[in-house]
Amino acid sequence: MKYEITPGKFITFEGGEGVGKSTNIRFVQAWLEARGIECRVTREPGGTPLAEDIRSILLAARDESVDPMAELLLVFAARAQHVNQLIKPALEEGTWVLCDRFTDATYAYQGAGRGLDLEQIEQLENLVQGGFRPDCTVILDAPVEIGMSRAKNRGQLDRFEQEQREFFEKIRGFYRGLANAGGQSRYALVDASVDLESVQEQLSVILQRLV
Amino acid sequence: MKYEITPGKFITFEGGEGVGKSTNIRFVQAWLEARGIECRVTREPGGTPLAEDIRSILLAARDESVDPMAELLLVFAARAQHVNQLIKPALEEGTWVLCDRFTDATYAYQGAGRGLDLEQIEQLENLVQGGFRPDCTVILDAPVEIGMSRAKNRGQLDRFEQEQREFFEKIRGFYRGLANAGGQSRYALVDASVDLESVQEQLSVILQRLV
Ligand SMILES: Nc1ncnc2c1ncn2[C@@H]1O[C@H](COP(=O)(O)OP(=O)(O)O)[C@@H](O)[C@H]1O
Ligand SMILES: Nc1ncnc2c1ncn2[C@@H]1O[C@H](COP(=O)(O)OP(=O)(O)O)[C@@H](O)[C@H]1O
Ligand SMILES: [Mg+2]
Ligand SMILES: [Mg+2]
Repeated sequence: MKYEITPGKFITFEGGEGVGKSTNIRFVQAWLEARGIECRVTREPGGTPLAEDIRSILLAARDESVDPMAELLLVFAARAQHVNQLIKPALEEGTWVLCDRFTDATYAYQGAGRGLDLEQIEQLENLVQGGFRPDCTVILDAPVEIGMSRAKNRGQLDRFEQEQREFFEKIRGFYRGLANAGGQSRYALVDASVDLESVQEQLSVILQRLV
Repeated sequence: MKYEITPGKFITFEGGEGVGKSTNIRFVQAWLEARGIECRVTREPGGTPLAEDIRSILLAARDESVDPMAELLLVFAARAQHVNQLIKPALEEGTWVLCDRFTDATYAYQGAGRGLDLEQIEQLENLVQGGFRPDCTVILDAPVEIGMSRAKNRGQLDRFEQEQREFFEKIRGFYRGLANAGGQSRYALVDASVDLESVQEQLSVILQRLV
């Protein structure tokens, strides 16, 4: 006997370092599972063994300076593997996928942050994803100093976290711009500067609209 | 005092496994250095520490099936790093660069071999290289069984070398097609099925035209 399966929804979580992405993904997972929705939590870059190997290459501190185009292609190589081997198969089975960062982070970090041509990023997005986009993108927003002080408590900073303050301001500005572009977009802005309970009240409102 | 430097030439070596690329690159290097030309020998994928890390990811045998687009993007990520950090700086200093495989190998292996869309490869070639192309591409050609029997003597086969016979026939056919396209091309076809001395006589003729 064959059942018709409603495909799962693909929710991505974006925002600067330490805004609470990892913490709140676990909350969203619990919220959805309490309503009988199966979830798969994953992250970018990474999510499969090969993609996690690429993540290690990207995050390693190096003497060699990393060519910006090489970095961009590594990000999309990991994404191609992740989308085709994990995300799409899960969605097709009816599982929801909660992903810690996705392509919006590439526009934010490599584009707005490092100054790579946004059109080159778009060209790669279309090459790798075709028309595939998240159903909802939660942007957790907090002043840079709040995120940085929260992140510092986690220990050693990686290559991206060592970037300058100005870099993180550009990224915050870019994400806020996405969320404020107006119209019926897939972006949902969450004030992540407040206490965790208040953040999670905002997330519940967003989730009610999705289920 | 400032000298005007003639930029070096970029020579790439292509062909299936075991045709003699590594062996003959050393011959070409010695031939050029005997004429006072400084050479840098390198290879793809690889050539810089980051690009060699990417090479290891590509060649590792895995349980996970590797998405063809992920593989293609890894190849071009390594190439972006190699071209921008090593090849172009060397050529600008007047050093000749001898490279074991380059973008023609991507067309041959990922395109003709694995069936990836040649236009997608071309899109990435233009994105990463702009108009940058080798000055001369030496195609070493020999029947598949000759290359394979020579390669076997080197020991353990990697992920690519384990591919089926038919795959290597496609690659040989693609390379021969490049060389035979006619006109004033950068491709030079060498019969690599004969003894090493005869191969190197053919190489000397090609080199005479380049210096
Ligand atoms: N709203 C909040 N208020 C206070 N602390 C928070 C809040 N959200 C997250 N944290 C804490 O901040 C740190 C960073 O959160 P984390 O979820 O790891 O951020 P990210 O994944 O976005 O980098 C964690 O120690 C977490 O417990
Ligand atoms: N023309 C030739 N005749 C006989 N043996 C050869 C010839 N060219 C190369 N070889 C041998 O074949 C093996 C493979 O050559 P190699 O240069 O490593 O090939 P490739 O780098 O193209 O895979 C080596 O052991 C090499 O000495
Ligand atoms: Mg996190
Ligand atoms: Mg070799």
